[in-house]
Amino acid sequence: MPLVERELISRIRRLASKRLARNKAGAIVAGIGDDCAVLRIPTGHEALITTDFSLEGVHFRREWQSPQFIGHRCLTRGLSDIAAMGGEPVAVFLSLALPARTPQKWVDGFFDGLLRLAKKFPVPLAGGDTTQSPDKVLADIVVLGAVPRGTAILRSGARPGDGIYVTGALGGAAAETDSFYSQLRRQRSSRDRIGGTLPQPRLTIGRILRERKIATSMIDISDGLSTDLSHICEESEVGAEVWEEAIPRAKFRGREVDLHFALHGGDAYELLFTAKKSTRVPTSIDGVSLTAIGEVTRTKNMIIIDPAQTRRVLRPQGWEHFRQRSSSK
Amino acid sequence: MPLVERELISRIRRLASKRLARNKAGAIVAGIGDDCAVLRIPTGHEALITTDFSLEGVHFRREWQSPQFIGHRCLTRGLSDIAAMGGEPVAVFLSLALPARTPQKWVDGFFDGLLRLAKKFPVPLAGGDTTQSPDKVLADIVVLGAVPRGTAILRSGARPGDGIYVTGALGGAAAETDSFYSQLRRQRSSRDRIGGTLPQPRLTIGRILRERKIATSMIDISDGLSTDLSHICEESEVGAEVWEEAIPRAKFRGREVDLHFALHGGDAYELLFTAKKSTRVPTSIDGVSLTAIGEVTRTKNMIIIDPAQTRRVLRPQGWEHFRQRSSSK
Repeated sequence: MPLVERELISRIRRLASKRLARNKAGAIVAGIGDDCAVLRIPTGHEALITTDFSLEGVHFRREWQSPQFIGHRCLTRGLSDIAAMGGEPVAVFLSLALPARTPQKWVDGFFDGLLRLAKKFPVPLAGGDTTQSPDKVLADIVVLGAVPRGTAILRSGARPGDGIYVTGALGGAAAETDSFYSQLRRQRSSRDRIGGTLPQPRLTIGRILRERKIATSMIDISDGLSTDLSHICEESEVGAEVWEEAIPRAKFRGREVDLHFALHGGDAYELLFTAKKSTRVPTSIDGVSLTAIGEVTRTKNMIIIDPAQTRRVLRPQGWEHFRQRSSSK
Repeated sequence: MPLVERELISRIRRLASKRLARNKAGAIVAGIGDDCAVLRIPTGHEALITTDFSLEGVHFRREWQSPQFIGHRCLTRGLSDIAAMGGEPVAVFLSLALPARTPQKWVDGFFDGLLRLAKKFPVPLAGGDTTQSPDKVLADIVVLGAVPRGTAILRSGARPGDGIYVTGALGGAAAETDSFYSQLRRQRSSRDRIGGTLPQPRLTIGRILRERKIATSMIDISDGLSTDLSHICEESEVGAEVWEEAIPRAKFRGREVDLHFALHGGDAYELLFTAKKSTRVPTSIDGVSLTAIGEVTRTKNMIIIDPAQTRRVLRPQGWEHFRQRSSSK
């Protein structure tokens, strides 16, 4: 069934439940249906804004992933950035361009995935833009968040001597994608779909790390540990030593994933943060493990140390979604 | 020269001048280079957010419009929405996806157009997302604005008896596009480009209409007068009478454009607002004319009255950019 823009807007309005219009962090004064959304940021707070594309053929494939997964991950990308600042989400905006013949069922599935995740926190869908696209599904998620003034956890706060930590386990999404590609190469087609596990934005952990003043710097792992750690190093003007054995690896099909996936695999949406040596970092928050994986150094390069204590240079080789980056990046 | 994402990000950082980091309406605490931008909304103010796609093949054509024009209009779309609430812009975020071989010169031109307009107000470019796109240039502009609490001018405030007003003159962009199409049909090609006049977001007028409590409802004319007036009617649950002769028509090539362009042409970025009968509306603000074009009515339809006093139903037939909408929309 073809979709027209007007129908889509009414649909979004209905889906963006009014019950969601108030949450802890802020309030919508006027939402979908005006030129702008009008929102209240609580007194003494700063606003956080993040925008993230989810483009068909770049970040997802409609034939390989369910619409629910695509919608869920689209919002995860935004919420995970709010988590990485220690913030709370206030409202979500979705710009969505759909090809003329997008099946209604696909659109419903996409919103189902996105709004289920939104409901969990809860954060309202407060506006956006809808249009027809020439051929591909194009989504841009914008999340407005709030954080008490002066407390946002930046990438630039890491200092030599700080410990380096990650939440959860890494490499699961990358191992699954890799296995899917291998299957495609063997069989030239696949009935399987990617997206067995829905990535969870670590909002509770981010907030607690801020409230307890644990993290000195923080980022979410969207491009891969090696790449995202390099961002912290650049912004903080420091280096890092990473202990290979300490990196928590996700399980895929019953066994731990290869180091490569944990070190460079994207789409993890775990948090990577640093904390002063003197800070007691809990071993878990909200049921998710926190693992020390290395130390911030004064020399501005990244080193990985293997179990035999051999030191190698660690280059940012993060994968981004369905596009493998060159290691020279 | 091919562009890689990393280069583009550094480029945007350099272009997003630090001199712009403070403006009247708010302040950037942390900008490009972190997971989120951190911003301050002034005390006693509400936040405004708007997002607008500018998609190649839908909203623009690289072969028909200069990159400067495309960049300028991309930001105009967002700023015009802030103007329509009576707000002030605080910061701009740009999500930009570029095909691998986008010429550097095109990218420079696009940013030149966008940043010149940003500088005028001034509003800083505070972040966004950059990625590679499979084939087309895809931009999503997000503008954060601020307005004193409870004073945003909504679409829903029009009441029967209110006068209907527009700023400036309408139909210029539509007439120019139409002329360009005719030329294309005749010659099968054109060396001309669309974009003779850069549309100006009416931020000063919007702010003054709010400060002086003149407007009861407001919208910007992006989809065409007939369509945007229908949005005010829907949200306010009213109807409208429009006086055909009163509609201010833009000049194109020395003569006034046809009524059709002024009534239904998109991309005008003028303001359409209503004001109580008892309110004295100035004839111009900031050098731009304000014209009474009709009256809000109790019956929920739109009527156009021609010079012979014949009344016809006015249907929303707004054009959107390079896609002509069906009148049944």
